[in-house]
Amino acid sequence: MKRMTATLQGVYVCDSPDSLLSSQRNELEVVLEGVPGDRHFGFTAPADGRYPEYPRGTAIRNHRQVSLVSVEELAEVARRLDLPEIRPEWLGANLLVAGIQAFSSLPPTTRLFFPSGAALQVTAENHPCTGPGKIIQSQYPDRQGLAAAFVKQAMHLRGLVAVVERAGSLCSGDHFEVETPVIPAYTYGPQ
Amino acid sequence: MKRMTATLQGVYVCDSPDSLLSSQRNELEVVLEGVPGDRHFGFTAPADGRYPEYPRGTAIRNHRQVSLVSVEELAEVARRLDLPEIRPEWLGANLLVAGIQAFSSLPPTTRLFFPSGAALQVTAENHPCTGPGKIIQSQYPDRQGLAAAFVKQAMHLRGLVAVVERAGSLCSGDHFEVETPVIPAYTYGPQ
Repeated sequence: MKRMTATLQGVYVCDSPDSLLSSQRNELEVVLEGVPGDRHFGFTAPADGRYPEYPRGTAIRNHRQVSLVSVEELAEVARRLDLPEIRPEWLGANLLVAGIQAFSSLPPTTRLFFPSGAALQVTAENHPCTGPGKIIQSQYPDRQGLAAAFVKQAMHLRGLVAVVERAGSLCSGDHFEVETPVIPAYTYGPQ
Repeated sequence: MKRMTATLQGVYVCDSPDSLLSSQRNELEVVLEGVPGDRHFGFTAPADGRYPEYPRGTAIRNHRQVSLVSVEELAEVARRLDLPEIRPEWLGANLLVAGIQAFSSLPPTTRLFFPSGAALQVTAENHPCTGPGKIIQSQYPDRQGLAAAFVKQAMHLRGLVAVVERAGSLCSGDHFEVETPVIPAYTYGPQ
């Protein structure tokens, strides 16, 4: 295992029933079900297009309680799209972090430990889709094709999803610890 | 992602309040909280010695709903310990699988899809500890030092823990699909 330190630059909640946008807070009090009031709150969730192996709407385990993006990667996506900025709210993010190289490449089971005692566990890389792309497009009406360009240019730069391992508060400005596991590439059978 | 097929040789439930032993069934009906009646049932669990970073008893997310072992690896541990057999019940296992090489090395986020529609997701390798070692020792009273020897010889052969991603039945004799993710070794920073 390796440990590194990062900074929580901002926290957000996605609490509008008819919008993917999140809005900024000073602090989130997370529980084991996720972020109270957030659209991704819960131990379970209905299967959506991300789970083509299950009938849509089937109750499955929710691996996507918390959405995380990084300052460095959002800046890189903005640079690739020639935009002045991409805000975490436009992606429905809950946490904006800074100080981790290749943030979206942190492997599943990576854990984040916060000063309050709260802990998150990474479950997956978050792949870009057109929902946030359309919100970015709506912010720059003078440009064209941003929704599709976002999906392409933000691949492996769109952050991570995580679940709450231990409850507590996540505060803007927190310095927190990141613990990455050692997961050797699995080599069974033909590639 | 890679897909392979395996066989469910047996299913078990660990439902005795004062024992780590599991007992065999023909079928388990799993739900999103785990195996009903099992000691590891629930979305949450109290932190134990496996989580030294949290105070003992703290409510944390339960990553250990289901315990899986393999026919091939149990045979290898028995061979190393010069024992005629090690039964899955002695390890408190829920599922005994056959047909997967290096079963304990399947990485986190590997998924198992069963004919009923039930699906499990691997959360971690299970490391051997002295609890099951003592049960093995009790089965072979003529031998000495088996508890400690088990902990040493079963490393990376003691199976996996998993959570339920989709509810359904797991039946002895099922042929099921295993889907392994591609997780490149994470290369951030100094090793």
